Parts: sequence; structure tokens; C-alpha cells
Amino acid sequence: MEFNIINSDKNTCARTGLIKTAHGEIQTPIFMPVGTQATVKAVTHEQLENVIKAQIILGNTYHLYLRPGHKLIERMGGLHKFMSWNKPILTDSGGFQVFSLSKLRKISDEGVQFRSHLDGSLHFIGPDESMEIQQSLGSDIAMVFDECTAADSDYQTARKALDRTIRWAERCKEVHTREDQALFGIIQGNMYKDLRIESTKRTVEMDFPGIAIGGLSVGEPKHVMYDMIETIEPFMPKNKPRYLMGVGSPDCLVEGVARGIDMFDCVLATRIGRNGTVFTKHGRMILRNQCFAEDPRPIEEDCDCYACRNFSRAYLRHLVKTNEIFGANLLSVHNLRFLVRMMEEIRQAINDGTFTEYREKFWENYRISDKGGAF
Amino acid sequence: MEFNIINSDKNTCARTGLIKTAHGEIQTPIFMPVGTQATVKAVTHEQLENVIKAQIILGNTYHLYLRPGHKLIERMGGLHKFMSWNKPILTDSGGFQVFSLSKLRKISDEGVQFRSHLDGSLHFIGPDESMEIQQSLGSDIAMVFDECTAADSDYQTARKALDRTIRWAERCKEVHTREDQALFGIIQGNMYKDLRIESTKRTVEMDFPGIAIGGLSVGEPKHVMYDMIETIEPFMPKNKPRYLMGVGSPDCLVEGVARGIDMFDCVLATRIGRNGTVFTKHGRMILRNQCFAEDPRPIEEDCDCYACRNFSRAYLRHLVKTNEIFGANLLSVHNLRFLVRMMEEIRQAINDGTFTEYREKFWENYRISDKGGAF
Repeated sequence: MEFNIINSDKNTCARTGLIKTAHGEIQTPIFMPVGTQATVKAVTHEQLENVIKAQIILGNTYHLYLRPGHKLIERMGGLHKFMSWNKPILTDSGGFQVFSLSKLRKISDEGVQFRSHLDGSLHFIGPDESMEIQQSLGSDIAMVFDECTAADSDYQTARKALDRTIRWAERCKEVHTREDQALFGIIQGNMYKDLRIESTKRTVEMDFPGIAIGGLSVGEPKHVMYDMIETIEPFMPKNKPRYLMGVGSPDCLVEGVARGIDMFDCVLATRIGRNGTVFTKHGRMILRNQCFAEDPRPIEEDCDCYACRNFSRAYLRHLVKTNEIFGANLLSVHNLRFLVRMMEEIRQAINDGTFTEYREKFWENYRISDKGGAF
Repeated sequence: MEFNIINSDKNTCARTGLIKTAHGEIQTPIFMPVGTQATVKAVTHEQLENVIKAQIILGNTYHLYLRPGHKLIERMGGLHKFMSWNKPILTDSGGFQVFSLSKLRKISDEGVQFRSHLDGSLHFIGPDESMEIQQSLGSDIAMVFDECTAADSDYQTARKALDRTIRWAERCKEVHTREDQALFGIIQGNMYKDLRIESTKRTVEMDFPGIAIGGLSVGEPKHVMYDMIETIEPFMPKNKPRYLMGVGSPDCLVEGVARGIDMFDCVLATRIGRNGTVFTKHGRMILRNQCFAEDPRPIEEDCDCYACRNFSRAYLRHLVKTNEIFGANLLSVHNLRFLVRMMEEIRQAINDGTFTEYREKFWENYRISDKGGAF
């Protein structure tokens, strides 16, 4: 994997860059749609490529390990071939899902024993297993296995998880052998600045080709998240891609980029889309609302997505209200295209030297959802 | 509406024809995908047009009357505009759903009082209301309001329903005024040959621009259905399109065409698709089966659909097993394309004078599902 910075913003930490992977190039900053179970929920690959214009998607190691199994995917020629997706794929380490979805049994220095959220069966994933799975999947970018802590964890818990994450990262680096797959380190440290800085320094020392920030957007206020990124930014190498894991609301993308982030992913776009809510430049629009029942306008006049070029809010609301799959499809397409297009505009603004104006204009329009909280 | 026969088969009642509607032409024989609630379940309009190549779709009067309401659709410019579908649309009369889905309250000569299957609210639809709703929707082809009886109804019940259907058809003709909408009559008579013949003669007398056969494929054996069609075929006018309602399995399409049918519709293709089963020229394939877990082949090598051109049975099975929406989409696309393409081949065979060979070849390959029963 190669990474080159193209332009850096004068006023902020924002920059544009180009990542080269075994399956093609990725222009940064980039939003990556999440393909949890080898499919980005509710959209077609054709839409992902031609309408949403995704450059890279995620696969979830935990889910693919359980179904259909990484060995099956390996026998089928790897994840790209299995799912017929020829552009870059990033896989997470499985750590986050093991901690958030499954019933934990026991954490040790070797890894985590857990029960499947599907059938309660007993499994074990540690750094060795995570590397084995991700190498079987054959993603272009793999992540080290890390220990995630809850947002309200105490200092000692965060300290222990940090140390373990560093040891696991070292082990991942040792056992990782695939040369066509880049391995990224992950910064932990919860909401403690000194721990975040220590985690950054120790992870940077290991010289991974890219570095991720994990354990943020787990329920803390957004200003705390921004503060954490600002705190560690000076300690992150300039010449490596920086990936803020699990973050994907429009405001967080703009503010993340301003703080030097190059890569984002989140299920928010597809999750709220399936539930009838869409992103607009003015904030979220809840299409279930009665006021849209006879609204002939598209979600957004100037959006180039399949939903906005063809369908009215009235029709989309009808599809949402009747739980039709086409509604989930159209709203997911819009939301993903919205984020990907935002990143296209942000890259353009950075390259043109107008990112500060872009950011100001964004905030003139954007109203954060009253519901708050969700990233 | 215009209808012209292009070619007639020498050995069977099969024929090709061309229907001209306000929204374009339809080559017959034709299979019409069902868009129950202003969307063909699980597929996109783009796929309907460019992959499935549907020439006409159905809308369900009962469902659209309940949600979002025909008056709302009328205010939005009619069903075509509301759902952004510019090709022909046929609407059913609402009769079948009133009898099969809702809780009936009272049938009278004026119509049917029923409770919504959604919220139990009380409604009334008779011939006047059915015409009002369908004229508001603005479909290209509307159907008369008819009384459907269960497959095991006794003679007197079938007799009464037949007479009422004839009276309702006369009333529909009286109140129907839209000149850009053709109104089709419906033959009833349950499984009683004399009633079917009588119903055909009396419906034909009313000189509708097209004629449908209702109340078949309601649970009776297929040979009974074929026998009924053969019984009434001689009494149906040659120069009008004949529509066999609610029939859409591959074998029934071939055999229906051989008996002089020009139009078919059915939810089977999308329903079994969402459930993980696909049509093939050898019969149905249940993709959940373990034997497909590592099968790298497409559903059918020679199918031109999006699913078969891009994805393996192994991947499709994974999507089905994990209940992913993309699975429902791909399988529905394949099943609809399968039926539409069959009809393309059948038209070609009739025009080439090789329909008998086509039919023989079909039966050499095709094995009817062990599950049987379902049409």
C-alpha cells in the first residue's frame, strides 16, 4: 500500500491524498460504506459503483467469520471474488463486534472467548485468529485486534485495555504475512487524554502503514470526540492515512476532516435509511412525517442520486410507511451518496484552497438532529 | 386501446399480438410483474426497465386505496407520475383482495363492506367505487369489480357469484368514462364448466376491449385449470387480449399460451424470490440448500439477468441465509427476468412457427416442484 498527500489546507489539518491498494486507488478524505455481511445493506453493487460511487467498502470480520465462515470465503477465492466486488475492501478486526454484539465469556492476554449472538455457540478470537481470518478474507486493508472499552470506563480499565491493545498490535504485526494487505494500528485510551497520547505514540512507533482511532463515537458528546482527535493529531505521522472508526454523520465528517482525518466508516447512513430518515444539507429529514405526504419534490433538488433524480418525497414516504424494500433501497442509496458526494466536495474544496469556506457554508445550513446523540 | 394479432400458431391456440395503450405498446403473450403497493417488491424501477425488461406492471387497487389512498395519488398526478413509472400499468378491481385479505362484513348487490387488513377500519367497495378508484389511479387497463369464490364453492354459490359479477360488470361499464383507460371484463364460474361457458358468453356480449379469466389458480389442480381454459377458449373472441389472472409459474405460462392466453400476472416470482427460491429451466432451485454453499456457478449459465451475470450461487445462498435485502433483490430480479425472458422466447417461437418444439423442449427440461400446489 502507498499513501501520498496531494494538498494540505492552510487553516486546518485537512488534507487530500491518494491511497494505492492491490484493488485500486482511493482518493482521501473518504467515506467508506459498511458491507457488514459481504453486502452494503439494502443497496446493489451496481448502485454502489455507479450511483453512490463508493471507492472502498468495509467488511466485518466478526460477521463473516460466523457466516459464511472465512475458510469458505478463502476457498471461494477471497472476499472480493466471493462477493464480486473488485474495488478495495477494508476489514475490521472483529474486536468491536466481539465486545458489543456477543456475550463475552472471558478476556485474556491471548484474546476473547465469546458466544455467538446468533446461536450462542462458543468461539475464540485473539490477535492470531483475527489475522488468520482477515488474511483468509484477503481485504486490502486489515486492522489489528484491539480491546474496546465503554465510554464511561474508569482510568484503570482504560489503561489495561490500552496496554493489551498494544501487545495485541505487536502480535498482529508478527503473525501478519500477506503482502497485498496493509495492516493498520488502532489508537485506544478511552476519554483520557494522557492515555490517548501514550497510545498514539506507542502505536506510531510500530510503524503501521496507516493508523486508526478506535473507541470514539461510543456515546460521548461530540465535542469530547473532537477534543480527543485534536489532542492526538500532533502525534500522528503526517505521511500515513488516519482513519476515524465508526464515524459517519455529515457534521462529524466535516469536523473530522478539519482535524486531519482521512478515512471514515459508519452504518448510520444505511441504518437510518432503512428506518425512513435521510441526510440533507439542512440536517436530517424524517420522511414518515405527515408533511411529506403530498410533497412532489425530491429529497434534495441538487442531489445526483437515483432517489432524488426520479422520485418524490410523497412516493418515498409511501414506500417507508408501507415497509417496502424499494424504500429502504432508495433511502440508503441517497444517504450513502450524500456522504460520498460530501467527501468529493470536501476534496475539491481542499484542493482549491476553499475548505474553510466550505466548512462555514456547511454550518450555515446544517442543523443537528434534535434527537442528538447518534453519530 | 388497440389490439392486433401478429401471428397464430398452427398447432395450438397460441398467438402473438400487440396491445397499444396510452403509455406505450405491449407485445403479447406477456408476463406482468405485480407492483402491489406502487412498487414491484424488492426490485428497483431501473432493474424493472433495463434488466427485467418489463413492458407493463400491475398495481393493486385494494392496497393503493388503503395506502396512500387513490385521491392522494390523483392529486399527485395519477399512479404513473406518483411512482415515476412511464410504461403501461394495469390495475385489478380490488375484488380479489377484498375477498382474500380483508375481514368481510357484508356482500350485497351494491358491493362489499369489509374491514381493512391493516387497522380493522370499515370500508365499502362496489362497482362504482372500484371504477372511481381505478379512474383516479389512471391505469392504462382497469378491471371490472368481480365476486371471487373459493375453489371448493358449491354450484349455487358459484351461480350467484357469476350473476352478481355480470351485473357488476354492466354497472362498471356504465360508470366508466376515462377514454385513456381500457376496461376488461372478467369471467367467473368457479370449476363448473357450464357456468364458465355461460359467464364467458355473457361477458363477451358486453364487448369489453379485453377479457380476463378470474377465479382460477385458487388451489385447484393444474389440470383442472387447463381444462377450464380449454372449455371456454372457443367462446372467447379471437381479436381481443385474454388475461389469465394470478397465474405465473413457468409451466403454467407455457401451457396457458398454448391455450390462447395473452397476458399473465402473479406475485409468485417475487414471493419465492424473497424466500430464497429461484426459477430455472429445470424447475425450482432452493438456494438455502447446503449443496449450494460453495457452488461458484450462477443460478443459470445462460441467463442474462444481473444476478446471473455477476454472482455465484454460494454468494446468493449466503445473502439468503443472512436475510440480506440484496438477496431478496437479486433473487426477485432473476425470477422476474426468467418469466419475462420466457415470454420473449415464446413470442419468438410463435413468430418462427416453432412453438410446439419450444413447448416440448420446455417439458423435457422442466420438473415441477415436489411441493406442488403453488402456481
